[in-house]
Amino acid sequence: MVIPGAHAALERRPDLEFVLYGNEQQLFPLLNAHPKLKARSEIVHTEHAVAMDDKPSTALRSGRWKSSMWMSIQAVRDKKADVAISAGNTGALMAMARFCLKTMPGIDRPAMAAIWPTIRGESIVLDVGATIGADARHLVNCAILGEAMARALFEVDRPSIALLNIGVEEVKGLEEVREAGQILKTLPLDIDYYGFVEGDDIGKGLVDVVVTEGFSGNIALKTAEGTAKQIAGYLRDAMRRTLLSKIGYLFARGAFETLKDKLDPRKANGAVLLGLNGVVIKSHGGTDAIGFATAIEMGCDMVENGLLEKISTDLSSFDHFAIQEATEMKQSAGAV
Amino acid sequence: MVIPGAHAALERRPDLEFVLYGNEQQLFPLLNAHPKLKARSEIVHTEHAVAMDDKPSTALRSGRWKSSMWMSIQAVRDKKADVAISAGNTGALMAMARFCLKTMPGIDRPAMAAIWPTIRGESIVLDVGATIGADARHLVNCAILGEAMARALFEVDRPSIALLNIGVEEVKGLEEVREAGQILKTLPLDIDYYGFVEGDDIGKGLVDVVVTEGFSGNIALKTAEGTAKQIAGYLRDAMRRTLLSKIGYLFARGAFETLKDKLDPRKANGAVLLGLNGVVIKSHGGTDAIGFATAIEMGCDMVENGLLEKISTDLSSFDHFAIQEATEMKQSAGAV
Repeated sequence: MVIPGAHAALERRPDLEFVLYGNEQQLFPLLNAHPKLKARSEIVHTEHAVAMDDKPSTALRSGRWKSSMWMSIQAVRDKKADVAISAGNTGALMAMARFCLKTMPGIDRPAMAAIWPTIRGESIVLDVGATIGADARHLVNCAILGEAMARALFEVDRPSIALLNIGVEEVKGLEEVREAGQILKTLPLDIDYYGFVEGDDIGKGLVDVVVTEGFSGNIALKTAEGTAKQIAGYLRDAMRRTLLSKIGYLFARGAFETLKDKLDPRKANGAVLLGLNGVVIKSHGGTDAIGFATAIEMGCDMVENGLLEKISTDLSSFDHFAIQEATEMKQSAGAV
Repeated sequence: MVIPGAHAALERRPDLEFVLYGNEQQLFPLLNAHPKLKARSEIVHTEHAVAMDDKPSTALRSGRWKSSMWMSIQAVRDKKADVAISAGNTGALMAMARFCLKTMPGIDRPAMAAIWPTIRGESIVLDVGATIGADARHLVNCAILGEAMARALFEVDRPSIALLNIGVEEVKGLEEVREAGQILKTLPLDIDYYGFVEGDDIGKGLVDVVVTEGFSGNIALKTAEGTAKQIAGYLRDAMRRTLLSKIGYLFARGAFETLKDKLDPRKANGAVLLGLNGVVIKSHGGTDAIGFATAIEMGCDMVENGLLEKISTDLSSFDHFAIQEATEMKQSAGAV
């Protein structure tokens, strides 16, 4: 799906150029079927690929320098490419991107941000699985990263940010989340902090950015995907059950097409690795050409709208020492 | 919604009897409108109610003995009632139920279990928010509690159990979850342990019971509810948009009714507090009479199918010392 996906993206953005890392014996026949893409592509042959079930540490150790994944990230580091896009092993991609590109000043670790379709449009949700566990400072960093991404993607000046929690009252939920809320509220950050939201609020589009820890973020994202599929299945079954419903389907076909489009997970495919000195996009492994093209275009948007510059500006204007100090003060107060 | 809900439940189960705790000045006029229910109800007057925004600790301290919530739980403890049902403050209900009913031998803390509609029927998901954070032993306990509930609810002999994780491979995800998986796999528990599932697997109904920690479980549950509402909204909008889609809707109305029924959150309303010496059901605060009736009937099912006895049997047949030992061994091995 990578080659037809690149082809589909090129159809919509004819100025794109590709560097394709992989086995040329596999790539050539595919490229020959897409002559337009071939004309705008350079192939860098490699026989090493990271397997889907490789542990990130194994992927980093064994033959790293030769794998297609590493080489594509390296191309971003060396300014040979603006963005690296992979549908491969998520853990390995995270580990390699972090090792190769390094995190930006003030950021401990990268986060993975997804686009979440809402009734009002789209929101950004992060972290959706880059790291398990987060303290208050990690969550505040995620808020800053998500804020910059929202400015790059949605072109709003002051995106609104919420923390995902259970219970919206200030006294409820995870301690780290409550603490991050206190920091976002009291520190002189120029952030439009909304407060807490719950799982059922994400799809309402109450805010531009929903911040959460990676384990629960991944579960939220996948649960939403699963529920959407489940309901789409119910709907399909219901419309096929009787003659009347089949006739109804024919009349309302246009409406169903619109709905199908809205529920199409390929239209929201692609998560951005944030906090690194370079743009890396993770595509769903199970997507097709249309989904992969979406991931490519997401990468282009990020680059064209100056994601890295926006994050840099945010990071330099935020006072990290103040955040760190506030966190440490709270922690020692908690210890007493 | 409590009184009309009780009335609706009574319509379907005429042998029910109710003890209603609350302000009689509010209850009498409502009961007068439902004479059948009035004939099967005893009112216990109380002027104290736990507020929705009370902290659990506050609710436990101030006027506890006089509140309707406490008195209804106490009625279960004193065998005056078989089940307590509340649509009130979740945290207070948890705290009071735990304090009044105590946990069963071998169980540290209660868990909250929800019914999750799947494409194959229903699964049980727990913990959906009773406690934040869980170590491997807590997760194993949840597996045992969920297993007994599945036997009581689904009438299967050997329900299948999975752990919610990110990534299904054994090397992936949260350490506590991996450790719980090891215990469930290696200990001589007579449990049909499936392995890990991800968020998008819950709705597939791969297993009878999905076990997770309370924070992520609550987020998964609410995210699924929110996504279902979001899609139902899309569908409504789509069918209203054009004349053709409106005509199609008329033809397929039967199919839409079936679908609406499947997506009706009231049909899955009610979470069970598991691990206590008594049955307590938490209803969604925002539900209506139909939803509250579902919660009442869930409570009846639990009692009639011998939930507590099934949990007791399970707990006594499982070797808790072995679980504890295994956990401690793993912990000290981890420390080395």
